[in-house]
Amino acid sequence: MEKARRSWRNSLHNTIYESNTRAGKAFDIALLFLIISSIVVVMLDSIESYHARYGRIFYVMEWIFTGLFTLEYLLRLISIKRPVRYMFSFFGFIDVLAIIPSYLSIFFVGAQSLLVLRALRLLRVFRIFKLTHFLTEMEFLKIALATSLKKITIFMLVVLSLVIIMGSVMYLVENGENGFHSIPDSIYWAIVTVTTVGYGDIAPVTPVGKFIASLMMFIGYGIIAVPTGIITTEMANAARKRTHGHETCPGCGREGHDKDAVFCKFCGTLL
Amino acid sequence: MEKARRSWRNSLHNTIYESNTRAGKAFDIALLFLIISSIVVVMLDSIESYHARYGRIFYVMEWIFTGLFTLEYLLRLISIKRPVRYMFSFFGFIDVLAIIPSYLSIFFVGAQSLLVLRALRLLRVFRIFKLTHFLTEMEFLKIALATSLKKITIFMLVVLSLVIIMGSVMYLVENGENGFHSIPDSIYWAIVTVTTVGYGDIAPVTPVGKFIASLMMFIGYGIIAVPTGIITTEMANAARKRTHGHETCPGCGREGHDKDAVFCKFCGTLL
Amino acid sequence: MEKARRSWRNSLHNTIYESNTRAGKAFDIALLFLIISSIVVVMLDSIESYHARYGRIFYVMEWIFTGLFTLEYLLRLISIKRPVRYMFSFFGFIDVLAIIPSYLSIFFVGAQSLLVLRALRLLRVFRIFKLTHFLTEMEFLKIALATSLKKITIFMLVVLSLVIIMGSVMYLVENGENGFHSIPDSIYWAIVTVTTVGYGDIAPVTPVGKFIASLMMFIGYGIIAVPTGIITTEMANAARKRTHGHETCPGCGREGHDKDAVFCKFCGTLL
Amino acid sequence: MEKARRSWRNSLHNTIYESNTRAGKAFDIALLFLIISSIVVVMLDSIESYHARYGRIFYVMEWIFTGLFTLEYLLRLISIKRPVRYMFSFFGFIDVLAIIPSYLSIFFVGAQSLLVLRALRLLRVFRIFKLTHFLTEMEFLKIALATSLKKITIFMLVVLSLVIIMGSVMYLVENGENGFHSIPDSIYWAIVTVTTVGYGDIAPVTPVGKFIASLMMFIGYGIIAVPTGIITTEMANAARKRTHGHETCPGCGREGHDKDAVFCKFCGTLL
Repeated sequence: MEKARRSWRNSLHNTIYESNTRAGKAFDIALLFLIISSIVVVMLDSIESYHARYGRIFYVMEWIFTGLFTLEYLLRLISIKRPVRYMFSFFGFIDVLAIIPSYLSIFFVGAQSLLVLRALRLLRVFRIFKLTHFLTEMEFLKIALATSLKKITIFMLVVLSLVIIMGSVMYLVENGENGFHSIPDSIYWAIVTVTTVGYGDIAPVTPVGKFIASLMMFIGYGIIAVPTGIITTEMANAARKRTHGHETCPGCGREGHDKDAVFCKFCGTLL
Repeated sequence: MEKARRSWRNSLHNTIYESNTRAGKAFDIALLFLIISSIVVVMLDSIESYHARYGRIFYVMEWIFTGLFTLEYLLRLISIKRPVRYMFSFFGFIDVLAIIPSYLSIFFVGAQSLLVLRALRLLRVFRIFKLTHFLTEMEFLKIALATSLKKITIFMLVVLSLVIIMGSVMYLVENGENGFHSIPDSIYWAIVTVTTVGYGDIAPVTPVGKFIASLMMFIGYGIIAVPTGIITTEMANAARKRTHGHETCPGCGREGHDKDAVFCKFCGTLL
Repeated sequence: MEKARRSWRNSLHNTIYESNTRAGKAFDIALLFLIISSIVVVMLDSIESYHARYGRIFYVMEWIFTGLFTLEYLLRLISIKRPVRYMFSFFGFIDVLAIIPSYLSIFFVGAQSLLVLRALRLLRVFRIFKLTHFLTEMEFLKIALATSLKKITIFMLVVLSLVIIMGSVMYLVENGENGFHSIPDSIYWAIVTVTTVGYGDIAPVTPVGKFIASLMMFIGYGIIAVPTGIITTEMANAARKRTHGHETCPGCGREGHDKDAVFCKFCGTLL
Repeated sequence: MEKARRSWRNSLHNTIYESNTRAGKAFDIALLFLIISSIVVVMLDSIESYHARYGRIFYVMEWIFTGLFTLEYLLRLISIKRPVRYMFSFFGFIDVLAIIPSYLSIFFVGAQSLLVLRALRLLRVFRIFKLTHFLTEMEFLKIALATSLKKITIFMLVVLSLVIIMGSVMYLVENGENGFHSIPDSIYWAIVTVTTVGYGDIAPVTPVGKFIASLMMFIGYGIIAVPTGIITTEMANAARKRTHGHETCPGCGREGHDKDAVFCKFCGTLL
């Protein structure tokens, strides 16, 4: 009896959390389909004309999705060994966020609009993909980004300082007019400019302002190259490590030899 | 008799499908000229003032182009061994798309506007170029892009999730106002922002919205480096493979010789 | 007595200028906190609605910050060996800029708005970080940028010429209308376009203008790759120099060994 | 007498065309100053308020500059061996363009506005820099750009086809409204979008249009990496060639050996 229950929980666990069985794959695809459908429904419901016409159908569908996601959540809790740990994990949190707004909407008007947060469940796509052949490529990207994080952080700090200083200067130059109403607004403009987004909702009008803006654009133009350079270099390094040096030394068993190495660089044994 | 017909079809095939003969080259250039002319005519006809003045001339020219393209299409069908296979190939499909709108316009008013699809024939430019010295360079680009496709796909999925989530958040923050009328609209705005296009037709107005937008711009600024890094790394790899010979030295068995090397650079043995 | 004063000045110097002691670290963090707070106050004060409501509180806080920064400045002068040299150094200059506007505002109305310049003190962030583990990464970025400065300068000169010439041409083409009121305005537009910022406050209207603008965008699209290429190459070089050891093998005299290599990878000699 | 004249012409030639003498350097700097001044005057004269106030002064100054440039042009013709060849050279052409508008303005009203072309003389900056230590860096950039020109051309052809096709599709989708008045206008929009400039003067309004625009932005986002990848790869190659392999083989006298080469790879001689 106990054993049967365990095996039943086990196969449920395999179906929900793994994807190497047929049932697991089917579950993953069904879940992905459900997530995308629920997001599409939320999206369409946000368009006023659709809401007016199909509002009632959307309402029913949202409750069906909520029901299914609630069921999925409960099954996840049952089939896992440490349910509490899952509840407080990143994905456990997101899974709850996807169902709570519906229940809240019973008591609070407007809480339904938080259903938008269901989009966060899209992140599950990566969990599902993680178990496929995309794994190595994702790892590769992750390593390259992780090693360059420090440099990117410094770079972002430089850009942030630049943007605050230039925004403040522009606030003085444009004299609080032409959209530069306050320093935060001016900083917002500086970010829009230096990242080359350039909405045009705020744009310099005075000659001096235009000159400083031109300077900022050139600076942005020049420094956009820096994060690219950092990430490219790290990626090239990661790629190099992956392509060569996979053989282990017969003497000391260590890896990381160059492709043209004849002797182990650690113990001197002939490779 | 049979032989004569075959040789006649053969030389027609060479003229139309190959470009190593004088007639083939002349045909390619004439075709390119025709395609570009027909596109220019469609373009000019779309400008109202030109249409009012030269509408009749354009009309006649379009029928002449349609006639010539129809003739070309029939010749292609006749001179190829498997005409049905050609009809359902990519270029066969495009070739039909370039002539059908004209014939449809006899029965349906407005079908002529589909002549715009003739622009797709521009893709033939690459078929023609393929047979020239641009070939190796194109192959190089194709290899680099093909190997990085997987990584780019993952990256695009990340950006897509980000854009959906951030768009939904902005819809909540800006409260469906200031152009953020619906979630799809907000996602459109998020794409416009993260790709640094920044039309400015939709722009955040509330302070929180501006703050989130600033965050998105910084993220976009940082991650624009990722596809560049991926493609650059793959290109460098492709370039390295092309320059370095893959042969090993018969004397010392080492690799890594340049393509133009005659002697092994490590032990001096003749390669 | 003299000795006591020296040691007192010494420990003050250590606290203010170094960060390897506990007091030094506390000072750095407190300073960073003060700088950020003072900037936030200046920012909030620039927003009209906040100024109306909390103007008096901000006024008091700004004087407190001014007092603290003045104290800090005096302590810096006292504890350093060459106070005059510090006064005329880059950071000495910025430190004065952060306090002067407040004192000026006693005599001149509006001088307080120069408090914005306090944002320059943010640059101290890097001085503080310099003494942490970010040091090597910053050095790396600095080397890569310094070696590519020459090439970037040439590149910027090319872009500047291009922008002046294209701006002048657009002034002629658009005939001084549609926002192209003068050559400087047209050059401003050219910079906005070539850096892909694209505010849209000035945009070509005539067909010829649109054609030239399209050309410029393609040029900008193509040349944005140049600074990226320069910096990436320099970074890859800097990274390579860091990873590869520069020592030559005593056995065979060859270079190119990894930093962690113990034996020569070519002849097996102990390095 | 004859000799004296030759030496006089010689020293004039050295002063004007070379910059290794003191007089040559002075001439270069004076010329650069004159060019920049004349451009600044043309710029300021294009601003209406300045023109109204200082128009007469600008008029006089422009004639002074014209006089000086005419004198310089004549001296160039006198001191060079083949004056006709110089006249039809690139710089000879630009030099004439800088003076002709003034003389034309005597006969034709408005010809003076062509003085804007004087900006082309800015290109002389590079001629002057060429003779300094910037030379090698410029050569480096030129080589990297020249070798990647073929790939960039193909890439630009792809982007051009894409832009024509997408522009035509958008013309159909937006039905000739919302700024998409004609196919050329739609293509202009497509270029503005794919290069991430994004003025916002033309922006999609219909949902389908917004969807297609989003697609284009993603495509533009992805392919902006291609030219960067191409140029970075070529630069890395050029840099690699420059750093190693400058020694010539004692046996066959050929260059291009790797840094770690022991034997000449062409003739097998010990390096």
